[in-house]
Formats: sequence, structure tokens, C-alpha cells
Amino acid sequence: MIAEDMMKLGKKSSVIREIFEYGNKRKQEIGAENVFDFSIGNPSVPAPESVKKTILDLVENMDATELHGYTSAPGDMEVRKAIAAYINRTFDAGVNAEDIYMTVGAAASLTISIKALAQQGDEFITFTPFFPEYRVFVEAVGATLVTVASREEDFQVDVSTLEKAITEKTKAIILNSPNNPSGVVLTEETIQGICDLLEEKQKEYGHAIYIITDEPYRELVYDAIEVPYLINYYDNTIVGYSFSKSLSLPGERIGYIVVSNKMEQARDVFAAVCGAGRALGYVCAPSLFQRVAAKCIGQTSDISIYKRNRDLLYRSLEKYGYHCVKPDGAFYLFVQALEEDANAFCERAKKYELLLVPADDFGCPGYVRISYCVTTEQIERALPAFEKLAKEYEH
Amino acid sequence: MIAEDMMKLGKKSSVIREIFEYGNKRKQEIGAENVFDFSIGNPSVPAPESVKKTILDLVENMDATELHGYTSAPGDMEVRKAIAAYINRTFDAGVNAEDIYMTVGAAASLTISIKALAQQGDEFITFTPFFPEYRVFVEAVGATLVTVASREEDFQVDVSTLEKAITEKTKAIILNSPNNPSGVVLTEETIQGICDLLEEKQKEYGHAIYIITDEPYRELVYDAIEVPYLINYYDNTIVGYSFSKSLSLPGERIGYIVVSNKMEQARDVFAAVCGAGRALGYVCAPSLFQRVAAKCIGQTSDISIYKRNRDLLYRSLEKYGYHCVKPDGAFYLFVQALEEDANAFCERAKKYELLLVPADDFGCPGYVRISYCVTTEQIERALPAFEKLAKEYEH
Repeated sequence: MIAEDMMKLGKKSSVIREIFEYGNKRKQEIGAENVFDFSIGNPSVPAPESVKKTILDLVENMDATELHGYTSAPGDMEVRKAIAAYINRTFDAGVNAEDIYMTVGAAASLTISIKALAQQGDEFITFTPFFPEYRVFVEAVGATLVTVASREEDFQVDVSTLEKAITEKTKAIILNSPNNPSGVVLTEETIQGICDLLEEKQKEYGHAIYIITDEPYRELVYDAIEVPYLINYYDNTIVGYSFSKSLSLPGERIGYIVVSNKMEQARDVFAAVCGAGRALGYVCAPSLFQRVAAKCIGQTSDISIYKRNRDLLYRSLEKYGYHCVKPDGAFYLFVQALEEDANAFCERAKKYELLLVPADDFGCPGYVRISYCVTTEQIERALPAFEKLAKEYEH
Repeated sequence: MIAEDMMKLGKKSSVIREIFEYGNKRKQEIGAENVFDFSIGNPSVPAPESVKKTILDLVENMDATELHGYTSAPGDMEVRKAIAAYINRTFDAGVNAEDIYMTVGAAASLTISIKALAQQGDEFITFTPFFPEYRVFVEAVGATLVTVASREEDFQVDVSTLEKAITEKTKAIILNSPNNPSGVVLTEETIQGICDLLEEKQKEYGHAIYIITDEPYRELVYDAIEVPYLINYYDNTIVGYSFSKSLSLPGERIGYIVVSNKMEQARDVFAAVCGAGRALGYVCAPSLFQRVAAKCIGQTSDISIYKRNRDLLYRSLEKYGYHCVKPDGAFYLFVQALEEDANAFCERAKKYELLLVPADDFGCPGYVRISYCVTTEQIERALPAFEKLAKEYEH
């Protein structure tokens, strides 16, 4: 007699969460230093010192009723101006403060964008592997998530495969680059291919097909890799961003949406974003952290640690005989399981206290996700376990 | 081609917001001290000093990756324990930490509770006057808001009027006491009457009818008025709370839901709350302010200022010939307009730089809401304007 789908959703804890809880139990049993937990994407690097300083400064010096008071629903105007200015000096994207809507993190950026666009029967397309909550968010508004397989060799998008999936009902494509869980960054060539196809399909169907680009890992890229800024490639773009990973603030829930002003009826789409935020109960994004984000924008926590972790883990695992997807960004390594069933493989890994996430829920059976947002020391201590695990399969 | 209802919702700024924006413009024109803005419910009293101290202490002394990291979705367990303990020592309500779900403020408490309960075709009942967003939140899940008129003489609920509105489709009653916009606190007699009726109706229809009680103003009551704790009166109760008003933190978006463990299948309802939070994109409530709320729970900002404001405004307006609803709580005075059309009345009030909110959108045409969460000095300076406005109608 209550909303049964919500009840089921609430009871079905995510695989990641289950492994994480198992890890906590195991740590109590045998000591935290003996458990190699690679399950969860919680940044291990603290927020930059400037975040702390900014909080202290705001709390000491700003009027408390203003600091903790409601901002306007799309966010404090000074904050929106600071973010627009940053986007323009970084990506030359011609964004206005009025195009920015502050959100309660990347998940809210997505649910609001989807709610703003979706009509009954709409389809949203994303690419495997994908963050499993995309399905939850799309289905929550009565729309359908269509998944398209990425190219197996490099996990880029294959444009001809995408083309087959686009129908008259396609409302939007959800992109996530750098990708969770693969760590892959979509190349400019891939982006251009997707945009060209969508332009063509928009003409064919006579209506807009939007790109929603989910970018919490934008700054977490290595080796001078470029992450193309979608607004510069495609007019019907909505950017969803979060400071969770760049500033190591995942619990504070602070991010933003950019509705490209280059799209037709951009103000209508922006209004729909405001309406959706309101309907979902988002009154405004947390006021203190709106200001912290604006003041610390462009900085990142020390991501060199993630690069060191990636290099160590990637090289070692390849040496032990694992096949890894080359990770250019985020803090995940996506690895082929050494047997067909990734769940069985992860169970076997537990014998060595290695906690890995099978990628079935990410739409990629046969793979596992390794979150390397851990201490480098944990990786060093875990390497022999990875090696022993690989040896088990050497027959 | 986008979600038209969301676009309309985003474009239709609330009456309150429009008057507030008009006030800001007017303040620039004639000076802030000459505009008597009573439009918005933004607490004028700063957060208690302990909030500042707690933030500084947490930021200085707690590990940043933990402080700003994800908490579990229903909230940090220590925080939930602290809140449950507070509820039990204050109301003796037998609440467990596991019944608490931390939210991003009162609006989120409502949208999540409604999404957790609502099935297609459901009806939610509330009483006029009511906070206009209730309609937005209920309609966003495809359910219907049914409004029942409060008793004109004291704005308590008339149980026989409520009885006529309950149907087989009634999923829940939304209560809001102390009430926005009337300031009325529902008496224990009223609560008992509602609960008795609902028990009877539940038997008649053979299914649960829930009470969702929206309580951001619980602590803002005057003259030793008691606000009954619903869980002690009715098993199928979901409490929605926010620290926005009690701790003057409306911009920080921090509150909680309590699912009474006395209801049948309480764990299923709690799971549905978790599922709904997930589907709406609420990953966790802001982590710093979860801890601030837990540490400062039971304190309030200096609400004696609101009482002084209420007394001054209520006595003066009655003296000038206005008819006011007796306000026992919140920081709103609900006043009969001196002409039939409250919009016309509010327009005329603008001549005296008085910014009042017509209550049409609250479901009470002919009334205006005066938010007295302003400085006492503003009220003192505004009194002659109220007097002159009343005199205009003395013929």
C-alpha cells in the first residue's frame, strides 16, 4: 500500500555498499591494515587547506543570518558569477551566471536535469559501463534507460552502435567522462562523432536531443589528458558538475548545473531545471558550501596521489597478467575478471582480503572495479595479494 | 518537448518571492530603512553561538576526509543516535536511531515521505491555510492534494469537515503545527480528534492512513504552549523536521524524518523512505551540518525576539482594528484583509511601503501573511503605516 518500487529500492543496497559493509566487519575481525578495501569512491585525499581556511574565514567574519540564510533557489548570484567566470576563463564557453543552477551534488544535478527534460515514454541513452544510479534516476521519472555498449578495445563510444539505439523517443544522452567505473576519458574524436550524429538525428526527428554530461571527475585526469568541454561542441548541452571529488567534499553535497545558453529556448530549459529542483524539494544548495566552492574553484585536493596510485596499480596488475582498461582519469581501475563470472572472481579475491566490485551492475559483466582512492601504502601492501590471486588462475 | 509542467513551475515564481524581489528593488530606490518588508520567512535571529563554535571545532579538529566524506545514506549513525536520544528525553517517544533518516531540510523531508508513500491515484489531505509547496510536492508524484478548510473562528481542524474529505484513496494527512502561515498550534484536543477519526477510517477501509507532520516551527512557540508529539498519539506517523528555524540555518538544508517504529511494517516504510531519497538524488544530508545539528540539538536561536515581535504586532494591529488570528507559534501573523480581495489590499499596503503576502496561494483568500521574523525596530517603525492603512478603510 506504500510505493513498492521505492521500498524495493530502499531494501536493495548497492553491491558497492554491501562490499563496503563487509569490509568494515572484516576490519574489526582482523585489523584494518589487513583488509584491502578497494570498494568505495570516497576521496582519500583531504580537501585542500584553502577549504578549511575559507570555512573558518566565512564563519568568523560573515554575518551568520546571511551566511546560513536561504540563497535564491538557483544559488547565490555572486557564487554563480564566480563559477561562470571560472568556466569562461578555463573553457572559453560563453557561459552566463544566469545559466548556472547550484545543486546538492552530482546526483541532484542529474535527477533535476532528467526531471526537467523527461516526458512520459522518453528514452535516455548511456554507455556501458555506467554508474548504476543512472537507471534509478531515469526510471524514477517514468522514463527508460537505454544502454549502449562501449567499444571493447578502448571503452570509447562506437558511433554506429549509438546510432542504432537512437529513436524518436530519445530525449537525451548521458555522458560520463572521466568515467566511473572505467576511468576512461572520451577523446575529442569520440565527442565530435557523437555530436555530429546527434545533429543529424535532431534534423531527422525534428526535435532536440540533449546531452547531459555528468562531470564530477573532470579535474581528475593524468598525463595532460584533455577533457573536452561539451558546451563548445554541442548546443543542446546540460553540464552536471560536483565539487565532491575535485575538492574532496562528497558529504557536503555541492555542485551545479550549466544549461548552455546556445541551445534553443535555453531560458525555458533553465526554467524547467528550476521547476524540477523545486518539485524534488531542493530549496537551495547548502549556503556555506556554495560560498566555499566559489572561493576555492579551480583548486583541487592533491590529485598527484591518485596518479601515483594509478601508475603503481596499473603497472603491477598488468605485470601480474591482469588485463586493465587504460585509465586516464577518475580514481578507478577497470579490470577483466580472471574468470567469466566477476562475482565468483570477487568472492575468490576475498580470500586474500581484496575487496573489489563486480561490474555487473555497471552493465559490464566479467569486469571488476578497483577504487584506488586509498593510501598508496594500502596498494603497496595489497600487491602480493593481487599477485597470488592471479597465480590461482595460471593453469 | 521538455517537461512542460516543470518549465511552468520554474517560471511561476511564488507570490512571496515576487514581493520579496519587489522589496529589494524598492529598498534600493528609497533606502532599506523605509521599506517594511514582511514577506519572507528567513529567520532574522542569528544561529546560536554554539553553532559557530561547533563548526569551528569540527573544522579545526576532525579529520577532513571524514568530516566532509559521505555518510551512510540515512545519515551518520552517531548523529542519528543523538537525535533519537533527544527525541526520547524530550517527548518520551520510544524512537530508535534506526528510525531516523537525515534529510536536506524540511522540503526534502516532505518530498521523500510523499514519494515513499504515494501510489498512482492517491490523495493527500491538508488544511487551509497551507504552505503552497505542499501542492507542488504532492502533484510531482502524480498524486492529488485535497484541501480541507480549517475552522474559521480559530483555525483548528474541524474533524467532521475532515471526515467528509477522507476517501478510500486517502494515503496521508499532512499536518503543519505551528502553522505557516497562520501561526496556529493544533491543540491536543484537535490532534486527538484527528487521530480518533483516522483510526476509525483505517478500520473502515482496511488500510493505513498516514500522518505526515511537517514541524520546522516546533520550537517556535510562545506562552508555554505545548505542541503534541504525534508519534505519541498515532502509530502511522512520519515526522518531518528541519533545523532551519530552530537553529536559524535555513540555507544549510538540514533536517530529518522519523518513521515511527510503532507503525505496522515500519521497516518497509523506512526502506521506502531510503529508496525515495535515493531516487530523488539525495545521497546523504550535508555531512558537516549533520554533526552541527546533533551537537546543537535542543538549543534554539534567541526566539524571545520573535515573541516580543509577535506581542507588539498583534496588540497594535488589533488596536488599529485589524482582525488577527491568535498566533501561538512560528513567526507569522495571519490577518484578515480589510477588503475582500487580499491582493488589492496588499497593493494598497505598498503605498505605505508595507510588503505583505496575500494568502490566496495558501488557500485562504481574504487573508494576508505578515512574517515578523524581522527586527523589532522595523515593526516599531512600520506601526504608523499599518495604522494609516487601516484608517483608509474607516468609512
